[in-house]
Amino acid sequence: MPVFKKLSSFTCLKMKIAVLGGYQTKFGELWYKSLEDLIFEACLGAIKEAGIDKKKIEIAFVGNKLSGNLSNQNHLGALLAELLQINIPVVRTEAACASGGMAVAQACLAIQSGQYDFALVVGAEKMTDLPAEQVSSGLMSAASLAEQQSGFSFVGLYALMAKRYLADFGCQEQDLAQPAVKNHWHASFNPKAQFPFPLTIDKVMGSSLIAEPLRLLECSPISDGAAALVLANPRKVFSEKQVFIKASIQQNDSLSLCKREKITGIKSAKMAAKKAYCQAGLGPQDLSLIEVHDCFSIAEIIALEDLGIYKTGEAYLAERNGEVKLGGKRPVNLSGGLKACGHPVGATGVKQIVEIVNQLKGRAGRRQMVNPLVGLAHNVGGTGGTAIVHILQK
Amino acid sequence: MPVFKKLSSFTCLKMKIAVLGGYQTKFGELWYKSLEDLIFEACLGAIKEAGIDKKKIEIAFVGNKLSGNLSNQNHLGALLAELLQINIPVVRTEAACASGGMAVAQACLAIQSGQYDFALVVGAEKMTDLPAEQVSSGLMSAASLAEQQSGFSFVGLYALMAKRYLADFGCQEQDLAQPAVKNHWHASFNPKAQFPFPLTIDKVMGSSLIAEPLRLLECSPISDGAAALVLANPRKVFSEKQVFIKASIQQNDSLSLCKREKITGIKSAKMAAKKAYCQAGLGPQDLSLIEVHDCFSIAEIIALEDLGIYKTGEAYLAERNGEVKLGGKRPVNLSGGLKACGHPVGATGVKQIVEIVNQLKGRAGRRQMVNPLVGLAHNVGGTGGTAIVHILQK
Repeated sequence: MPVFKKLSSFTCLKMKIAVLGGYQTKFGELWYKSLEDLIFEACLGAIKEAGIDKKKIEIAFVGNKLSGNLSNQNHLGALLAELLQINIPVVRTEAACASGGMAVAQACLAIQSGQYDFALVVGAEKMTDLPAEQVSSGLMSAASLAEQQSGFSFVGLYALMAKRYLADFGCQEQDLAQPAVKNHWHASFNPKAQFPFPLTIDKVMGSSLIAEPLRLLECSPISDGAAALVLANPRKVFSEKQVFIKASIQQNDSLSLCKREKITGIKSAKMAAKKAYCQAGLGPQDLSLIEVHDCFSIAEIIALEDLGIYKTGEAYLAERNGEVKLGGKRPVNLSGGLKACGHPVGATGVKQIVEIVNQLKGRAGRRQMVNPLVGLAHNVGGTGGTAIVHILQK
Repeated sequence: MPVFKKLSSFTCLKMKIAVLGGYQTKFGELWYKSLEDLIFEACLGAIKEAGIDKKKIEIAFVGNKLSGNLSNQNHLGALLAELLQINIPVVRTEAACASGGMAVAQACLAIQSGQYDFALVVGAEKMTDLPAEQVSSGLMSAASLAEQQSGFSFVGLYALMAKRYLADFGCQEQDLAQPAVKNHWHASFNPKAQFPFPLTIDKVMGSSLIAEPLRLLECSPISDGAAALVLANPRKVFSEKQVFIKASIQQNDSLSLCKREKITGIKSAKMAAKKAYCQAGLGPQDLSLIEVHDCFSIAEIIALEDLGIYKTGEAYLAERNGEVKLGGKRPVNLSGGLKACGHPVGATGVKQIVEIVNQLKGRAGRRQMVNPLVGLAHNVGGTGGTAIVHILQK
């Protein structure tokens, strides 16, 4: 493969992987659906949309964080092989809330290796219908032991980042409500969203403080759901109208927030974005739409800066002036984001890409934007111990 | 890369990945060592042996099954980044007891992709020093829900396979004791082994029945431990005396034992072996030594047949006549195997390869065999829902 450009120590290998199909289940409190049901629906949906026989699939990837902790079900590779009745390699990846993005990234590497031409990727999580304590404790397995033992929750950790951000950049508490309001508005056009209804700033500001300055309606919910993709070596598919993955980059940093150089930005996401732009031969200015990991409202603001779309300390102004809304200059989280579409953790990274594919293919229904060309998905694990960036182009 | 040969629907891409370093920690009940300690020791050991600066490593993989269930610690990619203070992508793979083999296989794909030249792989598990019930329940997370709810343990599931094997092939209960005795003998030469002492057939046969016909001393133990490898694109390293991975194949099958066509063999292992021979351009006759997944004594016997080394129903005869012992025609489990070296589940698949590398490099100490050229590692998840085969050559 041709080398695109050198980025210090990183060699930007060009890549081009075709997305043949994508599918998202409804996200929400799906008490009547098991993890297996969700995985099965998403995989079949993606395979159907890809229009290929399932026997063509040579390798599969399952992104999941919590089924070991919550349902005592590990070994999801074999579970998928059983569900789909396919004898192929199936790899389970886990990277906290970036488990789905990691599954996509590993599938890309598998295709780039030349060993496999058709890959199925599914991200899935079953989180509701369980004791709240068990879910909270399971979620904290993505943090360091010291953070767990100090009694932190993830909203507590992100609240530290928010506090510092507010103090450093003149951002107001009310600004933190903006991403939630925008994302709920987008979700109101998405029938697959967990909360398909709008919110007002007043409603967000009137909701309970969970960890100062973050309020209940600035936090992503506990959700069930799955999403799947069929990826392929573009030389093995014959169709003009394809969407391609042009960059797939994972980057890790320390697990513990206290070991980071700064907490008003996420270093792993910055590094991943830089490498992804290099790999795709594109820059922030080329992006038509973005799906970012808004696990908490502050996370969306920080993400837009880490991705180089806005300068440090300025993204909240873009949230204020509306340019990141549907109809604005560069819409962010048209799916409704983690906040309003829902956040079944293992599914999120895959769902982001499904949303971008739907937008690029012009079939996003009432939330369709006008003629998008390039989309970026930004998936984060924990407080940024893992960050995964994908860039798609049609 | 050149295509080696077509195997029905599978394209055997040739591969060649250099193993620069390998390291295994002591396996055992290491109450004074945490999962982090084990990972750290193994990684540093492998990097030191590889003789490279850790900054050369571009991607890392962590194979682990149980840390989410047992220690509420997921997100091991970020944990490793923190421990080693490296900002690279780190992928966690999970496939029950094949989590380590999966990590190696994914690292091979990453190098084959051309995106990464140097990869670190670590497999690790911390299983002791916890309530027995929690460990037993955690281990069963590798089985299907129906198997869990029926009250099965893994020894129970493998006992079904053993019963059928005894009934079909004239194998005696005493033959099941042979692999355990052989592997303990090998372990007596391995200072890293959990049980570095010999056993007699009488001692095995006198141990308690756990699930008829399997006895306590035919079962692999609960262990702590880690193993690590540094892998590289051979075009990026300059040394004549290398050991190479010539095949790396994963194959899945149904999670549930009851959904298999046969239970006296493991289909996923058979398929993986066939593809691996094809990829390496080698056959069973070329193997100097083999590390197989002897989680229970019957599993070693079945493995040797699945790998095409002995005909169906005949491997136990080779155990009887001693040709699989050190000094025999083709030694199996020189490390001591899972039975006697120990079975920290996430570490096992990596440790098998470390053992083969040590043998091929002629530094296996008192258990060194004479001039081995080719080794095969066979790593299984659950009852065969996942099987991973690696072939190494010097």
